[in-house]
Amino acid sequence: MDPDAVAKAFVEHYYRTFDTNRAALVGLYQEASMLTFEGHKFQGPAAIAGKLGSLPFQQCEHQIVTVDCQPSGPTGGMLVFVSGSIRTGPEEHPIKFSQVCNPAPPRSGSSPLLSLVGVRLILIACSPR
Amino acid sequence: MDPDAVAKAFVEHYYRTFDTNRAALVGLYQEASMLTFEGHKFQGPAAIAGKLGSLPFQQCEHQIVTVDCQPSGPTGGMLVFVSGSIRTGPEEHPIKFSQVCNPAPPRSGSSPLLSLVGVRLILIACSPR
Repeated sequence: MDPDAVAKAFVEHYYRTFDTNRAALVGLYQEASMLTFEGHKFQGPAAIAGKLGSLPFQQCEHQIVTVDCQPSGPTGGMLVFVSGSIRTGPEEHPIKFSQVCNPAPPRSGSSPLLSLVGVRLILIACSPR
Repeated sequence: MDPDAVAKAFVEHYYRTFDTNRAALVGLYQEASMLTFEGHKFQGPAAIAGKLGSLPFQQCEHQIVTVDCQPSGPTGGMLVFVSGSIRTGPEEHPIKFSQVCNPAPPRSGSSPLLSLVGVRLILIACSPR
């Protein structure tokens, strides 16, 4: 499968889950996964899900503008760079963000998308436009 | 050495070189290195240096705002996320950018910084503020 298509499908899946059922994101992380959020690091599914669950908004909507993908390392991983904006309520200004996902390669015998675990995220919330 | 300190030193070295002697960046790339610039991919030192050399400005000044670092993969690499702005002339507005570097681990016997080769970059130029 085309790596760019896999990356886009993963990003669509990730942000649709983030916007509709944030708690389910926990299934995408492994113990080695790390989230860097505004300079603070969280490691492992429990810590990452705890941080994402504690964000100070209940509803949100991501608008993805760009998805760039490159091969990452000798083990078949991918580096996925996403930029876009997030709106946390009908009265709120959209906040621009950039994010990096580093999904692990699929496990043997499983589909590429569903086993894109080991996600590493870096989220920088930029100023409202 | 602390990985965050290595990442910051690498970023300072990279952008100082970019701003003062852009052609010298070619020495940081290997054949497997890839640059994604505004959605277009360039692979290997010659193609990457050619693209960077062809950018439509002769002078520039990067202002780095954030540097985030995570371990990347089982071989000791790093994932470095940079955000900031670039000004391409005294009369020009700064352009915000985000960039990802994926430096390879240092070779045996060499210093960590100077052998941070195999850089992968993704540069998204956002709108002027």
